[in-house]
Amino acid sequence: MLTAWTEAAERMTKGHGAGPVGPTQGASNLPPDDTGEAIGLPPSGLTITFGFGPGLFRTADGKDRFGLAAKQPAALKALPHFPGDMLEPQRSSGDLCVQACADDPQVAVHAIRNLARIAFGTASVRWSQLGFGRTSTTSVSQDTPRNLFGFKDGTANVKAEETKDLSEHVWVARGDDAKAEWLAGGSYLVARRINMRIEVWDRQPLEDQESFVGRTKDTGAPLSGGGEFTEPNFDMPGHDGPVIPPDSHVRLVHPDFNDGVRMLRRGYNFVDGSTDLGVLDAGLFFLAYVRNPDTHFVPVQTKMASHDAMMEYLKVTGSALFAVPPGTRAGEYVGQALFA
Amino acid sequence: MLTAWTEAAERMTKGHGAGPVGPTQGASNLPPDDTGEAIGLPPSGLTITFGFGPGLFRTADGKDRFGLAAKQPAALKALPHFPGDMLEPQRSSGDLCVQACADDPQVAVHAIRNLARIAFGTASVRWSQLGFGRTSTTSVSQDTPRNLFGFKDGTANVKAEETKDLSEHVWVARGDDAKAEWLAGGSYLVARRINMRIEVWDRQPLEDQESFVGRTKDTGAPLSGGGEFTEPNFDMPGHDGPVIPPDSHVRLVHPDFNDGVRMLRRGYNFVDGSTDLGVLDAGLFFLAYVRNPDTHFVPVQTKMASHDAMMEYLKVTGSALFAVPPGTRAGEYVGQALFA
Repeated sequence: MLTAWTEAAERMTKGHGAGPVGPTQGASNLPPDDTGEAIGLPPSGLTITFGFGPGLFRTADGKDRFGLAAKQPAALKALPHFPGDMLEPQRSSGDLCVQACADDPQVAVHAIRNLARIAFGTASVRWSQLGFGRTSTTSVSQDTPRNLFGFKDGTANVKAEETKDLSEHVWVARGDDAKAEWLAGGSYLVARRINMRIEVWDRQPLEDQESFVGRTKDTGAPLSGGGEFTEPNFDMPGHDGPVIPPDSHVRLVHPDFNDGVRMLRRGYNFVDGSTDLGVLDAGLFFLAYVRNPDTHFVPVQTKMASHDAMMEYLKVTGSALFAVPPGTRAGEYVGQALFA
Repeated sequence: MLTAWTEAAERMTKGHGAGPVGPTQGASNLPPDDTGEAIGLPPSGLTITFGFGPGLFRTADGKDRFGLAAKQPAALKALPHFPGDMLEPQRSSGDLCVQACADDPQVAVHAIRNLARIAFGTASVRWSQLGFGRTSTTSVSQDTPRNLFGFKDGTANVKAEETKDLSEHVWVARGDDAKAEWLAGGSYLVARRINMRIEVWDRQPLEDQESFVGRTKDTGAPLSGGGEFTEPNFDMPGHDGPVIPPDSHVRLVHPDFNDGVRMLRRGYNFVDGSTDLGVLDAGLFFLAYVRNPDTHFVPVQTKMASHDAMMEYLKVTGSALFAVPPGTRAGEYVGQALFA
């Protein structure tokens, strides 16, 4: 998985950047039409997702940038500052995003690189992030993968089969935002680069780790018992208060305590080498699709950032929000309902 | 593939760090014995390779560090500065190296992390590098993978089946170094983090790219014709000098012009996001095993760094050299012939 957030050049005009603008083929004094590193590789399940950031609609001082300001979704604005945010500007924000997911990183890298290349002169890469090992299930038939804290991540994720919950929590519906009907059938993508204090976490007793998460490390079962998919019993008494602590991650983010909201998460682990202090520059590249960030992300994130016991081991270094237009039909281009 | 170079703490003593020193299991107030992120994953072909840097033998001012100085191999010393080297100290050198290779990055990351963890207090991570898509074949039955310049990389690599060449060019032989007989059956590992100027390369005409490499991008055949494995004909005339230019990569590194020396390369592509300038922080993590770096790496690298047309698109940001002890037999520990 490789994601790139780009900044559109001011000379971008409506619709540009959406169609292929690569070099003409055939003339020998031109660069090759494809960079080549994926020649001979299978498609590897490649998917590409595009998103539009607030900066595509308005400049930092609120001016209409490309004549699209009237269509800016109300919820597409900079996320508020959350406790624990230590954002690096060069890893945050962006006007456009491109996410490429594939079973082979070489295929994902190839896709991002060639899209960035055909945008040369129109948009440039602001930041990018490579990840591996998706942490969230998207289907009930998948085993739940693990994040770099070693815990299963995504047990309670919205699954592809849960069409009712997808409609209620993930897809923007017609009528959600009268100014942005072009987004109906699309979604919002919240991207957060969450550094984990891996070495410190690794020195915590297993009991503490499990009480921070509210689940066992081995099976992922809630501390109130059962298996991974057993509903947590938040009232079950323990030695010192509930057996699932009130500040545990599973309780803080549970729909029962968050107006019933759910997210479709598609996070990835990342390891970007080591810092000058000799600790891993690693963690979770949190990616979540929601119907509306104001109702489905900001409240639960605010609560988590203030109260979650796990926050002591996290540092959020990048953050961005994008509106992801609905998929294209044959003959359409990405975001056609917005740009046309 | 994840590689970590470590610095041994001064209080390391002979043999320490080689055996398991993890926390005792069973007591609930201790951290879990395993960090957990690979639970449920298959072995994924995991291999682990250890190496010893010059710093394990002597301090920077030449003093015997752990009583091993008398056994330091003569060729195990800092590599010379090469033209094009723009080394970052925090990505170079190291006393020990651990390379983990697996089909699943989560498995490789898990191995490095847990080895670093059990070394806590004895050795710390100086730098690490994650890579993907090995660029070199190691067997004649493998298709040659591609580097991020889009070219096949490893066509002429020493293959596992070429036992005579492995003995001659890769494995240290008994008698090679009287002071370091413990290294017989082992090898030297040269590690070079080579940043590629991807965006600039991508704008070069295909014809230029191919003349820099000396092979076609599509099939990997030498510019003198034939297929990927056809021997290059360096005398074949072209329009303006030989059809394979004298400063092409394939000619500069060919054994015919380098006293017949070969290397066993096991490089990986890397993408570490984007720099503040918006260009990919990406390239080739060059890893090569050689019988002696003084004869099998330094001369060819010196020539390449000075004359290779491709160097204009490369920047070497990390560099290290390690002596890799021979494999262990049942009941032995890594490097036993050195430490015992």
